[in-house]
This record gives sequence, C-alpha cells and structure tokens, in this order.
Amino acid sequence: MTIEVIGLDGDDTLWRNEDYFAVSQDMFHELVAPYANGDVDLDERLSQTERANLELFGYGIKGFTLSMIETAIEVTAGRIPTSGIQALLERGKEMLHHPVELLDGVGEAVAELAASHRLVLITKGDLIHQEQKVARSGLAELFDHVEIVAEKDEGTYQRILERHGISAAGFVMAGNSVRSDVLPVLAIGGRAVHIPYERTWEHEHAEHDGSVPTLASLGELPAWVAANG
Amino acid sequence: MTIEVIGLDGDDTLWRNEDYFAVSQDMFHELVAPYANGDVDLDERLSQTERANLELFGYGIKGFTLSMIETAIEVTAGRIPTSGIQALLERGKEMLHHPVELLDGVGEAVAELAASHRLVLITKGDLIHQEQKVARSGLAELFDHVEIVAEKDEGTYQRILERHGISAAGFVMAGNSVRSDVLPVLAIGGRAVHIPYERTWEHEHAEHDGSVPTLASLGELPAWVAANG
Repeated sequence: MTIEVIGLDGDDTLWRNEDYFAVSQDMFHELVAPYANGDVDLDERLSQTERANLELFGYGIKGFTLSMIETAIEVTAGRIPTSGIQALLERGKEMLHHPVELLDGVGEAVAELAASHRLVLITKGDLIHQEQKVARSGLAELFDHVEIVAEKDEGTYQRILERHGISAAGFVMAGNSVRSDVLPVLAIGGRAVHIPYERTWEHEHAEHDGSVPTLASLGELPAWVAANG
Repeated sequence: MTIEVIGLDGDDTLWRNEDYFAVSQDMFHELVAPYANGDVDLDERLSQTERANLELFGYGIKGFTLSMIETAIEVTAGRIPTSGIQALLERGKEMLHHPVELLDGVGEAVAELAASHRLVLITKGDLIHQEQKVARSGLAELFDHVEIVAEKDEGTYQRILERHGISAAGFVMAGNSVRSDVLPVLAIGGRAVHIPYERTWEHEHAEHDGSVPTLASLGELPAWVAANG
C-alpha cells in the first residue's frame, strides 16, 4: 500500500542524544570512583538504578539525574561529598540546556519528506524537554503533528494513528530503536525502517529478524520512500 | 451558547496534590534547618530555586525533588549530610508512588457530567506521572480525551480545541487555578468556572475580576452546567 504518513523518532534519529548521556556517565564515574570500593561496577550500578526507577520516573534527563544522585550516595555509602552531588545536578541542567544538534543530512531529508508526505514526530521523554528540543530543532513546522509520549508501545502507536485518522497499512515509522520504533509498529500492521545510531542505550536494545529495511542515515529515507511508497 | 465540551483540571480539582507538596516542604525544613544559618528563610529559598528551575524542569515532582536537593546543598553550604539528600530523594519517590485521592464528590460529579457532555481532562506536569494518576483515578474512561501539557496558556488551549474540533464558545473549563484554568480560557473566548482549593501554590496565584463563576466544589458543577448550558 502507498505510504501516506511517515513517523519519525526524535532522539538519535533526528538529533544527537545518547552521546550526552555517555559524557554524563563518564563524569559520574570520575566523581564517584574515589569514594567507592574498587570492586564496584559503577556503570552497572547506575544502570540498575535507572532500570529500577524507570516505571516511576519515565524516560528523560530529570529522572536520569535523580538516578545518578541515588546511585552516587548508595555506592559510596554516603561518602561522596555534597559538592559531588551538586556537580551531578549541574550536569543534569547542562544536558537540559544543551543546544539541539541535528544529525547529518536531517534538515534536508525532513524538508524533502515533508514536501510529499504527512509527517508525525513521535518522541518519548520529559514533556517540557522534548517540546524544547522540537522548538530548538527548527524542524517543528515541517511536521503535521508532534506526539510526545511516555512509552512507545503498540497501544501508543494505535492511539496516535486513531487520533489522526491514519491507517496502519499506510504508515511507516523510521527510527534508531528496534524496541521503540520498529517492533511495536510492525505488530500493529504498519511498516518500519531502522536507522541505527552508533550508540544505543542498553534498555532500547532489541533485534529484528533481518527483514526490516535498514538505512545508514535519515538522509537515505526520501529515496527509500520514493522507491517503496 | 450551549456548553458542548467541558474541560476539567486534574491536580487539586479532581484529586489532592498540593497537600503532598506541603508535607514535603515541612520535611525539607526539618532536614535542612539543623545545618542552615538561623536567619535563612528556607521556604523562600526553596521557592526561589523552584522558580529559577521552572523553565528548565517544568512542573512536577521530579523537578521539585531536584530543586529540594539543590536548595538543601546551597543553604547549608554543603553541610547537609548525604543521608539528608537521600531522605529528600526518597520523599520524591513517595510522592510519585502516592495513591490518587479523589476530592469529595468528584467520582459522582464526573460521571454525571460525562453522561451529558464530552469531557476533556487537561492537566499539566510530568507526562508519565500524570498518566499514572489518570489511570489510578479510575476516571479515565469517563473522559473523551486526556491532554497532558507542559504549560496551560492560551496557545495550549487553542491547540487542544483545534485538535478536537471544539469551538471556544461552546467550551467551559473548570479548575482550581485562576492562572492556568481560568484566565487563558477566557482570553480565547471560552468560559471558565473557578473551583478554589484550600491550598494554592504561590506560582499559580492570580486573581480574576470577580465575574467568574466560583463553586465550592466539583460536586456543584453538574448543577451549574445544567443551569448555564
């Protein structure tokens, strides 16, 4: 069936995201290691806290910052000085303030797609921060709809398609996360294109069966759509 | 004009909210005061931090928790022990886990309104937490739409009305905040009903000119709608 509407993911599909978390994780390491026992795997402990808090905090930088602080106190048995906690807080704010850096070719590709198709941006995380990123991206007016959601599962995609009167058969979603952008869309009868990013948060890791079209960058999507629409 | 659609606010209109912040603020006071100079106004300092962080964090408990931690470190010049910070973090999680307590008469009133009108819940704060509160409230299926927004200003209301094909003249919004639920709705040509809650966060404080219908509780809304629709 003809592609009627194209859904695009935000973080690490349109703009850089996971890289900033990686920088924060390195900083966390440096701040915490001097006060922790040498045999503690700091990355693993932070990751455990994040997973444990995910249902309560959801995705996004505020929850990540709270998880960094929680882990820093726990793994050091409270020995980390408050200046270290202050530094983690500041890093969280720095992440929230960070300018949006579009990935290579994104501006041109989104403009080209918008000229021929209805576009929906479907992104998850903190509402206010995602809104700010959309605004800072300069791409907002190219999208027919912007949907900021707490989780990208089958129910979420179904609600979005219903709300905008989009048929699953005419919908294709493109994004970097197999777990969030590919599998749930296939499950509800839509199509998906995987555009891997070099770095993926382990929580987002999933595999598809190899039959999902995989592109090297968003810049290749207009040609794929033209050939497959 | 006939009332076609009724918008309802969530926090402190349908369910208790500000009371939990007040409890947290007392706890903040107790935890921080022993390490702060006696002449510091702790409530005022916390409030200043919240205001300064509002644009970056938005509304909600995660941002409030980060602001409590930031203020606790600042006003004690870092003397607060990490156990105190841990206690603030735990309090934040307790707030997020808190069961939803509907205000008196809300269940019946919303059911009665839903029987005669399209209802839209319009609430602001953290996406995931507001979604959880809506789910825990048991009221979700009574609403035609649930809109979780980062800010309740004229633009927000305009977008919501457009999205659902609601005319401003046929829309009435009911809520406890003059700033968020009343003034912007009047400004775009809708009607508003003020249902004050006993406790209002100072940031939400605003006055209307006295011409706005004011009810003692949501329980009075169905009768008001019947008389004014």
